[in-house]
Amino acid sequence: MNQIVKTQILHTDAPFRLESGDVLEHLDIAYETYGELNERRDNAILIEHALSGDAHAAFYHERDRKPGWWDSMIGPGKGFDTERFFIICTNVLGGCSGTTGPASIDPATGKPYALSFPPITIRDMAETQRVLLAQLGIERLKCIAGGSMGGMQTMQLFCDYPLQADSFICIASTMKHSAQQIAFNEVGRRAVMADPRWNGGNYYGEVSPEAGLSVARMIGHITYLSEKMMQEKFGRAKKDKDAKVIFRPSFEVEHYLDYQGISFVRRFDANSYLYITNAIDNFDLMGSLRSKDRARGEGRQRGTPLDALKSKRGLVVSFTSDWLYPPSQAKEIVRLFTGLNVRVSYAEIETDHGHDAFLTDFEYQTAIIQSFLDAPS
Amino acid sequence: MNQIVKTQILHTDAPFRLESGDVLEHLDIAYETYGELNERRDNAILIEHALSGDAHAAFYHERDRKPGWWDSMIGPGKGFDTERFFIICTNVLGGCSGTTGPASIDPATGKPYALSFPPITIRDMAETQRVLLAQLGIERLKCIAGGSMGGMQTMQLFCDYPLQADSFICIASTMKHSAQQIAFNEVGRRAVMADPRWNGGNYYGEVSPEAGLSVARMIGHITYLSEKMMQEKFGRAKKDKDAKVIFRPSFEVEHYLDYQGISFVRRFDANSYLYITNAIDNFDLMGSLRSKDRARGEGRQRGTPLDALKSKRGLVVSFTSDWLYPPSQAKEIVRLFTGLNVRVSYAEIETDHGHDAFLTDFEYQTAIIQSFLDAPS
Repeated sequence: MNQIVKTQILHTDAPFRLESGDVLEHLDIAYETYGELNERRDNAILIEHALSGDAHAAFYHERDRKPGWWDSMIGPGKGFDTERFFIICTNVLGGCSGTTGPASIDPATGKPYALSFPPITIRDMAETQRVLLAQLGIERLKCIAGGSMGGMQTMQLFCDYPLQADSFICIASTMKHSAQQIAFNEVGRRAVMADPRWNGGNYYGEVSPEAGLSVARMIGHITYLSEKMMQEKFGRAKKDKDAKVIFRPSFEVEHYLDYQGISFVRRFDANSYLYITNAIDNFDLMGSLRSKDRARGEGRQRGTPLDALKSKRGLVVSFTSDWLYPPSQAKEIVRLFTGLNVRVSYAEIETDHGHDAFLTDFEYQTAIIQSFLDAPS
Repeated sequence: MNQIVKTQILHTDAPFRLESGDVLEHLDIAYETYGELNERRDNAILIEHALSGDAHAAFYHERDRKPGWWDSMIGPGKGFDTERFFIICTNVLGGCSGTTGPASIDPATGKPYALSFPPITIRDMAETQRVLLAQLGIERLKCIAGGSMGGMQTMQLFCDYPLQADSFICIASTMKHSAQQIAFNEVGRRAVMADPRWNGGNYYGEVSPEAGLSVARMIGHITYLSEKMMQEKFGRAKKDKDAKVIFRPSFEVEHYLDYQGISFVRRFDANSYLYITNAIDNFDLMGSLRSKDRARGEGRQRGTPLDALKSKRGLVVSFTSDWLYPPSQAKEIVRLFTGLNVRVSYAEIETDHGHDAFLTDFEYQTAIIQSFLDAPS
């Protein structure tokens, strides 16, 4: 029997201040939970999703044939064991799956924000999650965990609020983008904006810039797979050997990318893609820890000295063939947190599955995460 | 005093049969020459250009401020010494700088070919060069040389006509594209075709699909630079720190890609981009040597047994940080030609300049090429 879950929406009317200084008058936060919060309210784990993820991390929606994006990691007896832990996952700010983003209605105009949506940061995403945690009455998390962009939110929240979580798990991620990583995202954004249907972001109610967004997604997928895996999976095989139609996909790898592009545009908003990749490119964990905003304090935990992280625990995971966020960047994360006196474990998993391994290589991840969560804190 | 050169056009009215079986009734071949052909007509070297190159490999055009694309390698006392050798460079078939391509007028309709231009191959490019050589009265080349796609033409011509050249120099190239290499090109093509101005290839006389072609070129440039070089050159530096305009280039690497995209669309035809990248993806040197066309012979040298390559000479050059055509692929070339009993030298040049090194790292290339050309054959 598949376990059924429903995405819930927390609606708040308290003004939400962003790092930019802009204020959102209302905020919707889409989230799902799996397992039960115990009486001491100390068994909660917050899961952070990657660029194209959503709040639906596990279990099934009614009538769905496929479960949430990390269902193999979250459930009874799984890496994040729902018989022991209360798992929470929210859709990120700026997203398009229930949480407020550029496609949401701007209360000031009654129309979708589009590009009048303010720029957002990884820190802003983490702050929205605190709104939800407060609402759920959870003061302290057992763990914050996420892969790729989820790892960025994980680290930001863990460092900004040293009293809020016992530990973090950061998988296949980085503290900041290199020039090449920015470049790949920029080309994706440019592909979206080059599509006339993007129309300066004003396409809601019209046909969306599917062609441009699809190209952006195809670029992404090249970076998600390792060269070796791509070669073994597709090589130079052709699907339509005799196809004389020029410039239609003929190589199997072309068909694969084509499919990925098409299925993505059906579920993702082009402006969300721009806002979220922009947040990723501007993410700089160390820079953010030094920033004035942190020093300002304002009575918030964000002003708590990093000393409070001392002897907390962290797990950093990387994959040998991940060339989007390679092990060398994971090791920089390990060095940073070791320097902050966090007790960091590091696992480099041997795999040919590239960056996507955080979504596919469950066996090792399960063993490593279970033993990390089981260890005495 | 800058040496001045003019691009010349060879016009032929003899039908030109392509590998596909299609026939071009006329053929224009744009070419330049540098240095003098000696009396024995045995000092000619054919230079092959890369994807975005043209016949203008060296010297200056009247009133130009910048010389040809390989001017640092071609000239008096340079790697390809014009005081000793007669250097020839042609624009490739399918190109847009004088040689017949999709932007040329189709004699059957009086309009540009656009997509009615037949699909072309690397072998077709090499065949057009033989038409020119015949016209120039050159039966045997001292050497054929080229980088990137130029290396592909070099190897194809060298193997198809074992009696036509004494040696080859193949720089930063591959015998065939991997799935990942095809994928990068496919995303570039898709970016062009996603631009409504592409209009199924029919944009001549209208505004061309500049936005799409620019995105394609940006993707290319990411693969031309090494990650390290990009990081050292741009890092996370921002040009417009206070710019509040969202999704305009702000990181310096974004400005760089932007500039590359814009300057490319001014000089390159989008359909040529499609045809040429398609030829590159379908290039498979070993497959072509096994192909029926070769066995058929038709009295042409292409039917000459590969045995005739025995004890000819080859030089293969790669660059350590070239991740588009990495040293591992160069070594495959070395293995192939060694197996054909060609005397192959291999140089792996240590550099951070990535694939672009074949256009920028002159010092080592000059020394290696000079000593290769000086060696007794």
